[in-house]
Amino acid sequence: MAFTSDGLHVAIAGATGAVGQEFLQILTQRAFPVASLRLMASARSAGSTIPWTDAAHDTHELVVEDLASADFTGVDVAFFSAGSEQAAQARRAAAEGALVVDNSSAFRMDPDVPLVVPEVNAEAGRAHRGIIANPNCSTIILVVVLAPLLRHVGIRRVVLSTYQAVSGSGAAALAELDAQADAERAGRPLEADIYPAPIHGNVIPFVQAFGADDITTEEWKMVRETRRILEAPELPVSATCVRVPVRRAHSEAVNIEFDRVVSPDEVRAWLADAPGVQVIDEPATLAFPTPRDAQDGDDVLVGRIRHDPGHPQAIDLWLTGDQLRKGAALNAVQIAEAVLCGATPEGS
Amino acid sequence: MAFTSDGLHVAIAGATGAVGQEFLQILTQRAFPVASLRLMASARSAGSTIPWTDAAHDTHELVVEDLASADFTGVDVAFFSAGSEQAAQARRAAAEGALVVDNSSAFRMDPDVPLVVPEVNAEAGRAHRGIIANPNCSTIILVVVLAPLLRHVGIRRVVLSTYQAVSGSGAAALAELDAQADAERAGRPLEADIYPAPIHGNVIPFVQAFGADDITTEEWKMVRETRRILEAPELPVSATCVRVPVRRAHSEAVNIEFDRVVSPDEVRAWLADAPGVQVIDEPATLAFPTPRDAQDGDDVLVGRIRHDPGHPQAIDLWLTGDQLRKGAALNAVQIAEAVLCGATPEGS
Repeated sequence: MAFTSDGLHVAIAGATGAVGQEFLQILTQRAFPVASLRLMASARSAGSTIPWTDAAHDTHELVVEDLASADFTGVDVAFFSAGSEQAAQARRAAAEGALVVDNSSAFRMDPDVPLVVPEVNAEAGRAHRGIIANPNCSTIILVVVLAPLLRHVGIRRVVLSTYQAVSGSGAAALAELDAQADAERAGRPLEADIYPAPIHGNVIPFVQAFGADDITTEEWKMVRETRRILEAPELPVSATCVRVPVRRAHSEAVNIEFDRVVSPDEVRAWLADAPGVQVIDEPATLAFPTPRDAQDGDDVLVGRIRHDPGHPQAIDLWLTGDQLRKGAALNAVQIAEAVLCGATPEGS
Repeated sequence: MAFTSDGLHVAIAGATGAVGQEFLQILTQRAFPVASLRLMASARSAGSTIPWTDAAHDTHELVVEDLASADFTGVDVAFFSAGSEQAAQARRAAAEGALVVDNSSAFRMDPDVPLVVPEVNAEAGRAHRGIIANPNCSTIILVVVLAPLLRHVGIRRVVLSTYQAVSGSGAAALAELDAQADAERAGRPLEADIYPAPIHGNVIPFVQAFGADDITTEEWKMVRETRRILEAPELPVSATCVRVPVRRAHSEAVNIEFDRVVSPDEVRAWLADAPGVQVIDEPATLAFPTPRDAQDGDDVLVGRIRHDPGHPQAIDLWLTGDQLRKGAALNAVQIAEAVLCGATPEGS
């Protein structure tokens, strides 16, 4: 039994989803100090059991509770990955005394709720009033790279395009990708339900929904959350969010205009020292990161660092990170470590 | 027999490759006036036969000749898709009297050789000295969209990322993609030979080779050829070229900074009138183009036209086009139509 009496009483709300499952693994992998672990989900899943193997290799059969009626009294930290619709439950958990780390978009732009990436603004999390918001997945992996640059030099403008993995839309989307691959192989027509077009053998320049000004909600999140986390409310950001037939790990092609001329070597050096970042960038050996390299890892991988041939003060780079880990569950657990255990991610 | 006595004597050099095969289809689909058709390839393929069905549905068994010893006397137009290594043969064909339309990168920056996209600069082709260069595939589909904008308003800067299809690397790359999909399905390790990383379930931020300043040769082509075709030698262009697991049709996410404020509606109107372009852009019905929509078509499809929320004078848009057709064989045939038949693509 690895439950530790001086550990924390932990709850995971939304335990049956893709990110919920990731939380279970990450608590074990990081030997997060768990005194007890409770799982919550919708009434539909309540009563089912989910096995959890702790850091001491003991397996526990945990019974899923109905989130709507679960009592959070005595819970130290509740990781919510239950969607924006469960914002009221998150508020209730906080009112009952839990520190809530919420993975939905419900609280991210609420000025009373810190929006935290521990490598960037752990201190903001310590001023919480019961709820801390976990940012959008594509935004997290971007700011982990932008923040260490911003400490050395001002940033004038960011233009980026994403290459986002299908698991970002959940298990049903992965099943749709597989079903389309099977259909194409069998010469049958491809059916698209989760996405507005087939994702197998295709790319889709649309993520989630359309928002104001024909910009998607995912693109607006990248604009607004990046500004908030970096405390740069006027930073010009353009994002084009695109779904690609990759199972796991999001990637981004990023053009960054600085307020002075910066060399690729400076950027490499700054990123090499940055927490949560790994530089893989050696053209001579064709070394650059792909999403398959980032999958199941903790770091955001960065490569293709080079001068923009069209702008003397701009740098182009490529980054990729596991959006279910650093883009979601890992970042949330790191928030709890920073706020409750005083642990902040450090540079390598 | 659809060979027409008042037509042109045509040769295709590199007839056995992916683009060569595309030429055969396009000549038929466009009812190009063919008086005779000869096919050339490497000595390895010489003597084999390739069937060609003409516009009158007659099928001809054409015997492949050895390019190295083929005599181009009497050939009116020779479509070369044989790689830069065959530049000497292209020169010889021109010296023997053929108009050579060359699909390789050998002549593209040669000031004596026009670099032509008929919708953009057909008149430049008419000043040829025997050879006309067909631009890089990603560049063609970009300039077909940029040129009609540039006729209305100056462009200050372009930042783009590509999503390039596997067929751009030929049939062997498609076979590698399929073999990797089979291997993953069977739980076997994925082998990568054509590309430096698996392309199945992955994206690769690298196309072709590295050039100066850690920029890839594909990215340099997009910078330099775009400037040359648009006659904008100083135009700032940044390109990040990325391979994606799509079989056919390249896509690009493009940020364009104009020299005045431009509305998305203006851009839509200008592109709706542009030759070779089709606007598919209706957020209310989730209408935007994907590479599966562009595949096997002639037009470059454009959508996601919107203000860049970070720059008042910039517009973001998304484009996709069949890189074996408009990006290669179709553009080359259109060059011949413009120069030899006086036909220029017109707006819809």
